[in-house]
Amino acid sequence: MIDRLTESIKQKGAPVVVGLDPTLEIIPENIIKDSTGKHGGTPEAAAAAILKFNREIVDAVAGIVPAVKPNIAFYERYGIDGIRAYISTIEYAKERGLMVIGDVKRGDIGSTAAAYAGHIEPAGLFGREFEIWHEDAVTLNPYLGEDSVRPFLEVMKDRDKGVFILVKTSNAGSSDIQDLIVSSAPSAGSADARDISVSSSGMAGGEGTEHSGGAPLYEHVAGLVSAWGRGDGLMGECGYSKVGAVVGATHADVGARLRELMPHTFFLVPGYGAQGASAKDIRRFFNAGGGGVIVNSSRGIIGAWKAGGRDAGHVGKAARAAAVRMIDEIGSVL
Amino acid sequence: MIDRLTESIKQKGAPVVVGLDPTLEIIPENIIKDSTGKHGGTPEAAAAAILKFNREIVDAVAGIVPAVKPNIAFYERYGIDGIRAYISTIEYAKERGLMVIGDVKRGDIGSTAAAYAGHIEPAGLFGREFEIWHEDAVTLNPYLGEDSVRPFLEVMKDRDKGVFILVKTSNAGSSDIQDLIVSSAPSAGSADARDISVSSSGMAGGEGTEHSGGAPLYEHVAGLVSAWGRGDGLMGECGYSKVGAVVGATHADVGARLRELMPHTFFLVPGYGAQGASAKDIRRFFNAGGGGVIVNSSRGIIGAWKAGGRDAGHVGKAARAAAVRMIDEIGSVL
Repeated sequence: MIDRLTESIKQKGAPVVVGLDPTLEIIPENIIKDSTGKHGGTPEAAAAAILKFNREIVDAVAGIVPAVKPNIAFYERYGIDGIRAYISTIEYAKERGLMVIGDVKRGDIGSTAAAYAGHIEPAGLFGREFEIWHEDAVTLNPYLGEDSVRPFLEVMKDRDKGVFILVKTSNAGSSDIQDLIVSSAPSAGSADARDISVSSSGMAGGEGTEHSGGAPLYEHVAGLVSAWGRGDGLMGECGYSKVGAVVGATHADVGARLRELMPHTFFLVPGYGAQGASAKDIRRFFNAGGGGVIVNSSRGIIGAWKAGGRDAGHVGKAARAAAVRMIDEIGSVL
Repeated sequence: MIDRLTESIKQKGAPVVVGLDPTLEIIPENIIKDSTGKHGGTPEAAAAAILKFNREIVDAVAGIVPAVKPNIAFYERYGIDGIRAYISTIEYAKERGLMVIGDVKRGDIGSTAAAYAGHIEPAGLFGREFEIWHEDAVTLNPYLGEDSVRPFLEVMKDRDKGVFILVKTSNAGSSDIQDLIVSSAPSAGSADARDISVSSSGMAGGEGTEHSGGAPLYEHVAGLVSAWGRGDGLMGECGYSKVGAVVGATHADVGARLRELMPHTFFLVPGYGAQGASAKDIRRFFNAGGGGVIVNSSRGIIGAWKAGGRDAGHVGKAARAAAVRMIDEIGSVL
């Protein structure tokens, strides 16, 4: 998966993934009307409108970006109908030659995580295999520790799949927990992780001395993610691991620091565009060769038709233009 | 929701919730055969078997426990069919007078978290409201910080719903991140949280001095959860907040410490039974009056028919007996 992704980024010259996070507000009136005409004013109509909208976006960007990233929350909100639209969107994107990162941010204790690993592993049922979700990779939340990730790593050893683990997210609230200064790791999962977590000076000074003897939690998590990614069968031929990291574009210095700490970890970078980050902000997230990163934009691309004052007939055209602009912006700083 | 829950626990004399985490291995052969007979060897058959099994469990325990807790991972693994079984299970449990805690462990940035809040808020569509998920409360992951929780708090101000936020989970891997010693909080969300996070002595000593000038991350998260739970419209009349905490039964001292730190936070306690914790381990999680806690057991109850060597006809009977035994065990230490 990581080799296919890096190859496709190179081929298309586009380290860009389009976030398929549709709300009804972002979908043109004519698509909504068509859906409610068929399905009434129901969740089924909402889901049908989302799927139709997504197809237009996918058609428009399939030739120029390597991947799309639907966030399941925007589908799950409409229950079964929404989940059906999520899966149909994934299938359609793959038919059109796109890779799909399912932004699901799951995380649970070991036995339960094994059930969630069904996102990247067919369900074995009654002697047959059923591919249920179809994602090429999914995002994971690390709060529950290594055993919440392990079942995914086991699947990835033998399959062309990947994960991106949250390290430092793009939102303001990410500082509440991810930025806390960790002074020691009483039971860290790996020696590597510990090395990184105690990376600055020794402990010193009184209360309130920031960073003394420790590092932010996200650096510790980076160490864990990096160590997990070095496991058997997880390194790709491209020099990056199938175990990637989510690093928000909105924290320029953090991204640069994490690139140093995790040279073999591929970054999925949300927060570009609508969330406020620019190409300049993320330049140092890339490696020296301009690789190792895929940048996500959701509203900036799928909502471009609306922002530009264009009419509903131009959803795909506006999305494609916005994606091209983003590719150019990023290309210009690399 | 929290008032209904505490009232129901009192009435039934049972601070116990039954985890509905069914795997096909735990479902009797006759139920599986019946399902595959109707639906073939398909995910639909797996989902139908799960639903039938869950109904037997629900029927058996409805009179003696206040709530059930389906973990969505065990349903999500079967895609649309699985999600349908999850929702049908919830509806059935509510028909039988049980409350339902959806163990979904969701967490995302603000705008996306608002979509996930659809678990506890009807979807407003085309001028109507659609109840999609039906849970009374859901579990949340705090790694993304306050803005990932805020949309749920907004819903809960006006609605009889609740959340339980992961503080310290029951699994071994919980130590990887949750136990890290946090020495300072550069941008904590609330003064209360900061007070708690710097709870021991001032900073002192050299590298490796554990706990000096800090506290484990889970205590910091406890401070945040406690502070969030004191918001407008969130305190129940029972003295507990609608914002609860997940505290694993497998860490006896941690639970006792968290009870001190969070006197007005209701604890959802997984890890009893199959995961190894006993009634004695969790005695100090309760308040002085024996309240403030609901303890989950999944495999210990739903798999009791198998563990006891009983035949498939006794699924419900064995589950009920196991639940009664658990209620008695816990009652005996309070």
